[in-house]
Amino acid sequence: MLTEIITIGDEILIGQIVDTNSAWIAQKLNDNGIRVKQITSISDDRNHILEALAAAAKRADLIIITGGLGPTKDDITKKTLCEYFGARLRRDSSVLEHVRKLLSSHNRPILEINEQQADVPENCTVLQNKNGTAPGMWFEHGGKVYVSMPGVPFEMMYLVDEEVLPRLKNYFSLSAIVHHTILTAGIGESFLAETIAPVESALPPYIKLAYLPKLGQVRLRLSAYGEDEGTLQEEVEYYAGQIISLIPEFVIVAGDKPLEKAVLDYMKTLGLKLALAESCTGGYLSHLITQHAGSSEVFLGGAVSYSNDLKTQMLGVSEETLASYGAVSEETVIEMAVGARNNFHADYAVSISGIAGPGGGTPDKPTGTVWIGVAGKNRVITRKFVFPGRRTQNIERAAVNALVLLLKLVREDHA
Amino acid sequence: MLTEIITIGDEILIGQIVDTNSAWIAQKLNDNGIRVKQITSISDDRNHILEALAAAAKRADLIIITGGLGPTKDDITKKTLCEYFGARLRRDSSVLEHVRKLLSSHNRPILEINEQQADVPENCTVLQNKNGTAPGMWFEHGGKVYVSMPGVPFEMMYLVDEEVLPRLKNYFSLSAIVHHTILTAGIGESFLAETIAPVESALPPYIKLAYLPKLGQVRLRLSAYGEDEGTLQEEVEYYAGQIISLIPEFVIVAGDKPLEKAVLDYMKTLGLKLALAESCTGGYLSHLITQHAGSSEVFLGGAVSYSNDLKTQMLGVSEETLASYGAVSEETVIEMAVGARNNFHADYAVSISGIAGPGGGTPDKPTGTVWIGVAGKNRVITRKFVFPGRRTQNIERAAVNALVLLLKLVREDHA
Repeated sequence: MLTEIITIGDEILIGQIVDTNSAWIAQKLNDNGIRVKQITSISDDRNHILEALAAAAKRADLIIITGGLGPTKDDITKKTLCEYFGARLRRDSSVLEHVRKLLSSHNRPILEINEQQADVPENCTVLQNKNGTAPGMWFEHGGKVYVSMPGVPFEMMYLVDEEVLPRLKNYFSLSAIVHHTILTAGIGESFLAETIAPVESALPPYIKLAYLPKLGQVRLRLSAYGEDEGTLQEEVEYYAGQIISLIPEFVIVAGDKPLEKAVLDYMKTLGLKLALAESCTGGYLSHLITQHAGSSEVFLGGAVSYSNDLKTQMLGVSEETLASYGAVSEETVIEMAVGARNNFHADYAVSISGIAGPGGGTPDKPTGTVWIGVAGKNRVITRKFVFPGRRTQNIERAAVNALVLLLKLVREDHA
Repeated sequence: MLTEIITIGDEILIGQIVDTNSAWIAQKLNDNGIRVKQITSISDDRNHILEALAAAAKRADLIIITGGLGPTKDDITKKTLCEYFGARLRRDSSVLEHVRKLLSSHNRPILEINEQQADVPENCTVLQNKNGTAPGMWFEHGGKVYVSMPGVPFEMMYLVDEEVLPRLKNYFSLSAIVHHTILTAGIGESFLAETIAPVESALPPYIKLAYLPKLGQVRLRLSAYGEDEGTLQEEVEYYAGQIISLIPEFVIVAGDKPLEKAVLDYMKTLGLKLALAESCTGGYLSHLITQHAGSSEVFLGGAVSYSNDLKTQMLGVSEETLASYGAVSEETVIEMAVGARNNFHADYAVSISGIAGPGGGTPDKPTGTVWIGVAGKNRVITRKFVFPGRRTQNIERAAVNALVLLLKLVREDHA
């Protein structure tokens, strides 16, 4: 059972938007035992859409299409699907009613181009889109299933969860895929590979190991393909255990969890509260944490103390320290972390101050210099980094390393 | 001159990472007048890589490949490129020297798999990768150009900017593409289309108009294709002006700028300082702003007051207000905004408090309820939203609408 995802939209091909839909869909399909063979992004162009559909049908059993269903002239997916299937458009009364209701409830006028959203190829099953005006469409044709959905992420996500996945489970009899991920930090990809080589060499042919490096972290992913999910699960867990036993000190979490979620979950089990004092990361670490539901059980909040005045006012960093050592210094991050812990009544507080770039570097403190502090109950640990990247990467690396340092101190305090 | 981008990696097809490389490359190529015809993501699989290369060579003149160049066993791009070109590997002495230097400077051991990074197909021109151990590779074969780069974003970005683009400019004689973007907010896509229909209908065939909706904003993009860049530039600017004249009150900025950058730039020209008080957005708006270099000229910082205690302590929200009206209320966001403006000595302060979800909703204040306040010099404006989405979308929508509300007040104050 192989799938191809086709995303349609000029905006993808000129790089104006990042195609996040494909990754989201791919993850959902994989979780349900459906392998994605290829992801293809093409423009709003009749010929190219027709070619891509025909090519996908040769490779895959299921073709998932997103995009090009808006009400405007540049959106031609529906018309082109009609051509591909040799079908005509019909106006669907249930969709028409939904479009009218939705627009009325937003006090928007109902225009002819809105009503055209209810036109669907006659050979499709309509998938009602509660979050928007463009319906999803399900086609069965030539032994293949085609699903077309709008490209607006939260509309597509609703349709996948509520309409597409339940139908796929019914329609296909699926073979099992089991993934198991181990998140590591503080060890390079090559050294990691050398260290776990004995386990990798012993893997059976139906279990694959992949290395996914990202900004100071390497995710190890074991993937097992076969018939019986229970057996595969046991096997990957066995090999995952073998790997972990070779690199215990570098394992952040055994499971496919983002680093910040692993830290949050761990602190939650210990009943600990966290506060932040961010300078150069400018709220990015707070955002990483608060994107997760339930983060308020651990995270109290923090200061985005971008200016020096705010470091003093919100965190109590002394003006002497700032004047003597500068905002990017060990002394400052210690006072920031301690100030955040005390002022915000947290058990642990993390502070970050650095020069994210591109400007602001000096010979003494080049661009990419970042000091991180973690204040725990009894002590403060600090570390200095000099990151080589651009602004965005430096911000991300600083946040990642702050989390690793926080986890280290919490683990040591609770060993 | 058409391009296909091929991204190689199982991690993309199982949705474990989002392919941001393609969008970044596509944007760079478009800026330089190179059109991307298709983006194809495939797995680390020999046959599939060979097929994708052959298919791309039929569609495109330039094939850009990322991924699969790591030192580990699952990375097979280099070996497969050799097979595709009928070439053998040779060990490149300049790359070998670079790998040794890089690893030594990081105090890492040099392993045989590291040295293998210096093995390249004999028919390639090596593109030195200052940011990593895997070199870029440039191939000319059968009248086409192939470029292979590592998938690690900051390594790939360095290679594109420093090595690939200069070579492409030399190699191809490029036809011109000019894009012009207008960012709108507060007007639905359909109503926008009806309003600007007269301009759209009058566009010559070589100028296309696209609608790019995203969370309360619609980007309009005019794209002109032809020979003379200057003429195309004049033409798209003429039509952009026509469009703007039909919807002046909904235009955030004429240009391809993110919303937050448009607001920052506008406040900078007015010499205004901004502070934030974020609750449910948890640092996301601060992060949006501080990802831009130079944001410190406008942005002073802010409070991520996730807990009620921190709303009182950092922003001076009264405990009576929180007890009587709750954290998600007009009264609270007014006090948050005024508190942030006064405490942090800003000209404007934005406050956001809401229920991002998935839990936490009540019949009175359902999930998605968000209050936004903006405190200016003389007055405070507020607005309530009830967003229909998931947690992440609700956070993003809240931030977007906060920026639109901030821009509205700043514009009114400086009209």
